[in-house]
Amino acid sequence: MSFVAPVDQIAFILNHVVRFAELRGTDRFAEATDDTCAAILSEAGKLASQVLAPLNRNGDETPARLENGRLRSSPGFAEGFRAIAEGGWIGLAADPEHGGMGLPQALNMAVADMMSGACLALQLNPLLTQGQIEALEHHASDDLKALYLPKLISGEWSGTMNLTEPGAGSDVGALTTKAVPNGDGSFAITGQKIFITWGDSDVTSNVCHAVLARLPDAARGTRGISLFMVPKFIPDENGDPGVANSLKVVSLEEKMGIHGSPTCVMSYEAATGWLIGQEHKGMAAMFTMMNCARLGVGMQGVGVAEAALQQAVAYARDRDQMGPIIGHPDVRRMLATARAEIFAARAIGLACAVAIDLERATGDAEQAARAAFLTPIAKAYGTDVGCRVADAGVQVHGGMGYVEEAGAAQYLRDVRITPIYEGTNGIQAMDLVGRKLSDGGDAAIRLLDEVLDGARAAHADHEDLATPLWQAAETLREATQAMLERDLPERFAGAAAYLSAFARVLGGHFHLRAAMAGGAQQLALARVFMTRVLPRHAGDIAEAIAGLDDLAALDDAALSGDVAA
Amino acid sequence: MSFVAPVDQIAFILNHVVRFAELRGTDRFAEATDDTCAAILSEAGKLASQVLAPLNRNGDETPARLENGRLRSSPGFAEGFRAIAEGGWIGLAADPEHGGMGLPQALNMAVADMMSGACLALQLNPLLTQGQIEALEHHASDDLKALYLPKLISGEWSGTMNLTEPGAGSDVGALTTKAVPNGDGSFAITGQKIFITWGDSDVTSNVCHAVLARLPDAARGTRGISLFMVPKFIPDENGDPGVANSLKVVSLEEKMGIHGSPTCVMSYEAATGWLIGQEHKGMAAMFTMMNCARLGVGMQGVGVAEAALQQAVAYARDRDQMGPIIGHPDVRRMLATARAEIFAARAIGLACAVAIDLERATGDAEQAARAAFLTPIAKAYGTDVGCRVADAGVQVHGGMGYVEEAGAAQYLRDVRITPIYEGTNGIQAMDLVGRKLSDGGDAAIRLLDEVLDGARAAHADHEDLATPLWQAAETLREATQAMLERDLPERFAGAAAYLSAFARVLGGHFHLRAAMAGGAQQLALARVFMTRVLPRHAGDIAEAIAGLDDLAALDDAALSGDVAA
Repeated sequence: MSFVAPVDQIAFILNHVVRFAELRGTDRFAEATDDTCAAILSEAGKLASQVLAPLNRNGDETPARLENGRLRSSPGFAEGFRAIAEGGWIGLAADPEHGGMGLPQALNMAVADMMSGACLALQLNPLLTQGQIEALEHHASDDLKALYLPKLISGEWSGTMNLTEPGAGSDVGALTTKAVPNGDGSFAITGQKIFITWGDSDVTSNVCHAVLARLPDAARGTRGISLFMVPKFIPDENGDPGVANSLKVVSLEEKMGIHGSPTCVMSYEAATGWLIGQEHKGMAAMFTMMNCARLGVGMQGVGVAEAALQQAVAYARDRDQMGPIIGHPDVRRMLATARAEIFAARAIGLACAVAIDLERATGDAEQAARAAFLTPIAKAYGTDVGCRVADAGVQVHGGMGYVEEAGAAQYLRDVRITPIYEGTNGIQAMDLVGRKLSDGGDAAIRLLDEVLDGARAAHADHEDLATPLWQAAETLREATQAMLERDLPERFAGAAAYLSAFARVLGGHFHLRAAMAGGAQQLALARVFMTRVLPRHAGDIAEAIAGLDDLAALDDAALSGDVAA
Repeated sequence: MSFVAPVDQIAFILNHVVRFAELRGTDRFAEATDDTCAAILSEAGKLASQVLAPLNRNGDETPARLENGRLRSSPGFAEGFRAIAEGGWIGLAADPEHGGMGLPQALNMAVADMMSGACLALQLNPLLTQGQIEALEHHASDDLKALYLPKLISGEWSGTMNLTEPGAGSDVGALTTKAVPNGDGSFAITGQKIFITWGDSDVTSNVCHAVLARLPDAARGTRGISLFMVPKFIPDENGDPGVANSLKVVSLEEKMGIHGSPTCVMSYEAATGWLIGQEHKGMAAMFTMMNCARLGVGMQGVGVAEAALQQAVAYARDRDQMGPIIGHPDVRRMLATARAEIFAARAIGLACAVAIDLERATGDAEQAARAAFLTPIAKAYGTDVGCRVADAGVQVHGGMGYVEEAGAAQYLRDVRITPIYEGTNGIQAMDLVGRKLSDGGDAAIRLLDEVLDGARAAHADHEDLATPLWQAAETLREATQAMLERDLPERFAGAAAYLSAFARVLGGHFHLRAAMAGGAQQLALARVFMTRVLPRHAGDIAEAIAGLDDLAALDDAALSGDVAA
């Protein structure tokens, strides 16, 4: 069975679960009418199902490669990218002043969900380009905006993010790439960057690298980092690609998955670049890119999970072993749990996007805090669900799941990058219990109040669902208080479990809302979630507040296996 | 860092946790003295670390392949196999009458643990050969034994298991391969088999296929299946490989991992075979092979987990991001949890092996029931831990984890087969709550009584560990009673969760015993398990006894994503 973009599910969540309609009450998004949204989702769904999904195997079987230093993308990827660009999808949420459509991120993330389910390796290119568009919109000079934004938004050019260096991954502040003023307003950028996704392209006529580097007088650490635009071809007086810049792709990584997405080692050798935003304020601009990309990566997890589950369900309907295996309770358990978790992760991601949109439309600080709190949850839970569901998809296929021909293994190999990039899920969890609880827990408690209110409202109709959710939310509120009393290392030791617990409670909340608004099947799905996913929250909570003592007592040597001491 | 076989850990578990010493009180294993065991473990450890581990990347990078219909194994695999054979490792637990060493399965499984951690793709060959040896020892005629066992035990020849056909995987009874009497005591075997591990070999001079097939008068289903020995080369009058049999490898599967292990599509075209055991009793002989192999596969999970964790710890000690990342609480959590789960899975597997040995040595029915109950737990939990730890290993490596060069990804790709083959983990769970509870729960309750006794005995010294374990075991006892009151489909819907809960409780039990017998680090490891792994038992129990209603209420269409109804 081929991938069918989940248009109806997404529309249901937007309209009945995450209060997308509130956006229409704002000036900024007044044009996001019901009809517009329905048309957008439907068109994106067609593109994903009909144009992009058929390319997914090509990317795996014929990886992007370097040929005499130039990138050759996988068969059909150029056509796929052009279809995305020509549909206007790259600029869906971009500023209309430079050619964007100005629509909500919630719609953009819905489209990302569908397109990444169809072809993750290709979808990475527009996703990163969108991140660069965001960074330029918020931080770049008018000249840079005028030169680059129209080309990026139209998809003539693509954009990359250059953060990581061999010695600087999660510790971005350790980077050593240098930027020296040329005296004419430009800078000479010198250094090596690794893990640069789509660091070159034969699909666009220019590749715009957003590169973090240090000015000569820069402070150590993250406060001494600036962001530069370093194009592959320096734009000429007409704004067209001109002279080749002194940068190159040194090599491509051989990866476990997303073979169609070239992961480049980049070398900048006094390449010409222009400052994006202020000197030494590169981290702020980078966070603009990364926050957008983090939510986008969460949606990638959801999208691949959707595709993997659809394939597993099709296989389970067809595969007969004493009756179709979809009727076997253990197989059905795997599929139903996967479906329930996909719903939860999708709703969390879209709720986060709606909060981002409301903040942008109204400047409301509570929405900003809500979006900031939900972002690491959406990223980590979305990608964890991506891996869990793709893994279940392999398992449902039995031996065929392990054979590449069936395609189930590709989903698992592809999606495995998502808990790693744009900040590992460990970094997300630390962000949640560190920075995102630094408001004294206000944003967390507001979310939990919403969950509790929802459970109270649903109690009369669905006591069997509302009661366990209410209890879980109360336990989580207590755990949040306990977390706030701990120091950071103690919080970090429970961070992943706390994030997981929060995701389960929010998932239960959105399921309950869906059960109230939807039909019998939506209610049945909520029951699966409350029966099989929510109860695991108890184990998460226990670990979340357990502190650090047990970990600190174990020697490094014991971790290696020398526990005899 | 290179793999170091966990000799000391295994010796500690054998001597202090799973009561290996009881075997020495039996006539059969009186020779398994302390010195013998220490020498065996030490020698196997050297072979694993020094000879086999260096081959592991070869297998991945240069897969086994067919060349003009003949198998070419990965570079070095022939030498590796010869080293295993010449060390006598294949016949470690085999009958001395035919050249085996007659040592306990507990030692054999300890060796399997180390060798699969070193090179899973190669270790599969001796593992399957051992399964065939067991089947022949228990079921074959004296003539067949005399002809095949010495060659299999010495490693001159290797053995395979041929169960699966395109339409018959978990449903073995659906197989259609035919066996027609030739009139001379032999049979003509015709059919196609898939997923045949090491279905050909350039490493041994003959390949002995144990093939399930149906006689002309056979009943439908599993009661009409017989097992045949179908050698690649028919032994001549001297017992040497003679005329080529009419069988061939049609193709090799391209798999997610274990590239060094050829997975063959086999075609038998009136190939000559000889009955193993009685007509129509092939399933019994096959179960003899599979039970041994199931526990062996559980140990494979443990072994690969060990290797993956060692590599992750080495990376985390070396990788500096604001200090070595091994000191970061979230990384330390992943590593410590992995180490604690490996200990638990290893102890469960070795405890199962000791029960098998005690049964064989004494004929004790309680030990037989204990072994039967522990086998599916050892297989499923061992392989689940294998996947979880290899996954954590990738995550600890960050971006490098996704790059094949680092090797972390190979462990994850390789180990992913283990929850699938020799009966998927879903099949194991169904076996546990079905057949293995068909004694009215006696074996389960005896195990739980042992856990409760252990917790009581440890209470004075380690109340903080003993109390939660005691409570978990009591909850599991209640869940076992609840399970017994349910019908099979309801049990199956909670089977995986029940198995997981049982594994956590047993893991806690063995950790507690280790904490009583070992030093400070063993105690610290037990505390990690009780803090971060055991509490997840609550979520398992909730799902285990939840029944089937929630799953039955969800339509097939809703599983596909059509939840609007």
